[in-house]
Amino acid sequence: MAVKIQLLAVGKLKEKYWTDACKEYAKRLSRFCTLEITELPEERTADAEGQNILKKLKSGCCSVLFDLQGEAVSSEDIAELFSKKLIGGTSEFVFIIGGSEGVSDAVKNAVSKRISLGKVTYPHQLMRVIALEQIYRAMTINNNITYHK
Amino acid sequence: MAVKIQLLAVGKLKEKYWTDACKEYAKRLSRFCTLEITELPEERTADAEGQNILKKLKSGCCSVLFDLQGEAVSSEDIAELFSKKLIGGTSEFVFIIGGSEGVSDAVKNAVSKRISLGKVTYPHQLMRVIALEQIYRAMTINNNITYHK
Repeated sequence: MAVKIQLLAVGKLKEKYWTDACKEYAKRLSRFCTLEITELPEERTADAEGQNILKKLKSGCCSVLFDLQGEAVSSEDIAELFSKKLIGGTSEFVFIIGGSEGVSDAVKNAVSKRISLGKVTYPHQLMRVIALEQIYRAMTINNNITYHK
Repeated sequence: MAVKIQLLAVGKLKEKYWTDACKEYAKRLSRFCTLEITELPEERTADAEGQNILKKLKSGCCSVLFDLQGEAVSSEDIAELFSKKLIGGTSEFVFIIGGSEGVSDAVKNAVSKRISLGKVTYPHQLMRVIALEQIYRAMTINNNITYHK
């Protein structure tokens, strides 16, 4: 079963160091899954951004929103989220990173799961790197591959 | 009162994208404080690394360890940590990032504060970027400067 991961992110990567960091994790992830990164435009309101996000959500996939108010998870919890869904027959995952205006309630209600990586706010560009790193880390945990650093 | 911040980090930055990201935050921080980044060598044990860390801790400074088991903080909490200490007359801060072997109890007992940015494990290179970004964010919060992204 081929794992498909889509990362939906509001806002563009501007700095080269973020682009390069994301490229590196995308390369490493290619061993485990098909990764598609979809950038959505920044809009004036979270509602407008939310409508763009909702249009991209396919039914039948597991959609995970990074959300400060979501369930606080560890890297092992993210790994378990993947393994449980895969065992249940779901092989398509969508991870969503909202913009600086936050995420609309419509999106919060539509997703399968809301997870929080901590109480700390990150800039969206760094958040994209963190998300890819954590997805990669989850894959290494589930595949018993050493990756500490 | 000139604010001095030292970042003590076990392990080297290898990839150019991490170095460049750290340089950018160091540049932005230069507006608010004197920043010194001290890299400590990776040793065979957390105890050996801990001894190196302890040698670098000066008395009278506020030492903050990034620790998964520390107090879960928000970006605003980090800003408040700075402002409270500054009001109390402390202007030197040391932030500590341990190595992949973890941090010895000797260090955990010696520091002023242990803070956790979440339950998630990060590679130490990314952790350094995250630490600098959060220190910078705290400065912008305390100086009422807009910084969302």
